[in-house]
Amino acid sequence: MNSNALRNLSYGVYIVTTWDKGRPTGCTANSAMQITSTPATLALSINVDNYTNSCIKDCGHFALNVLSETSEPSLIGGFGFMSGRDTDKFDGVEYKTISGLPVISDNCAYFVCKVKDTLEAGTHTVFLAEIIDADMSAGRPMTYSYYHEVVKGKTAKNAPTYLPDA
Amino acid sequence: MNSNALRNLSYGVYIVTTWDKGRPTGCTANSAMQITSTPATLALSINVDNYTNSCIKDCGHFALNVLSETSEPSLIGGFGFMSGRDTDKFDGVEYKTISGLPVISDNCAYFVCKVKDTLEAGTHTVFLAEIIDADMSAGRPMTYSYYHEVVKGKTAKNAPTYLPDA
Repeated sequence: MNSNALRNLSYGVYIVTTWDKGRPTGCTANSAMQITSTPATLALSINVDNYTNSCIKDCGHFALNVLSETSEPSLIGGFGFMSGRDTDKFDGVEYKTISGLPVISDNCAYFVCKVKDTLEAGTHTVFLAEIIDADMSAGRPMTYSYYHEVVKGKTAKNAPTYLPDA
Repeated sequence: MNSNALRNLSYGVYIVTTWDKGRPTGCTANSAMQITSTPATLALSINVDNYTNSCIKDCGHFALNVLSETSEPSLIGGFGFMSGRDTDKFDGVEYKTISGLPVISDNCAYFVCKVKDTLEAGTHTVFLAEIIDADMSAGRPMTYSYYHEVVKGKTAKNAPTYLPDA
């Protein structure tokens, strides 16, 4: 099996946000996709060791923020390579509360989601969530390959798409 | 809620293949993603009305074929806008059997997968599957936005990402 083939799956680059007992927190993610159109439902995979995972379970909701090609690259590292357990990831990050969830301003779309089901899949939890609010603005969504090829970004060890030699 | 925001999620373009009692069949898909790295596991969403859905359930395995930007566009329509119930979708399509599954030749990567779990999510089944074989070749993976913007492709009504005005 050639694990490098996994680099040929296509993804976006997202910041998943939620509440940690009244404090906004979140993490960078790429494994998110729509699974049904009626009702509009998303699946999102988050490592069980990510602090955001337990916060989503406590809160029962999350927002999926879609980064654009012009989004500030430091958001990806700030939300991706530190733990919200020890850090205020929202320090200096502009956001507002929309439909009850913290939504970062530097996105080209967002989805506010209510968790309907969870599936524990070993190292990761798959959240199935209904979209309860969504909107978009100008901007071209950043793809995962754009992040690697143009932004020259790295992949966090807790990502489903992490490969040791990445 | 602005449903058009859903267009800002990023995907690849895939042909999912499996066996229909010894005959190869399959369908076009875009909602596929890696959910864990160890073991390497994929999630794939397929409409319950797609004939391929019941064939995957019977077979217990599928192959995810990643189309490249230079893959023949007629593959997408041929596998996407007809039913394998009535049609031999592999008529004229070059493929070979790899690790027990029919894998089309015109791809830039493939994953042979064994279904480990299924989740019925209303209109769609989410298959969770372990990758048992994978390989890649030259070629840039086709993204869903490339398909819409460059190939000028349409979305099938059974796709999770279908929007009525798409």
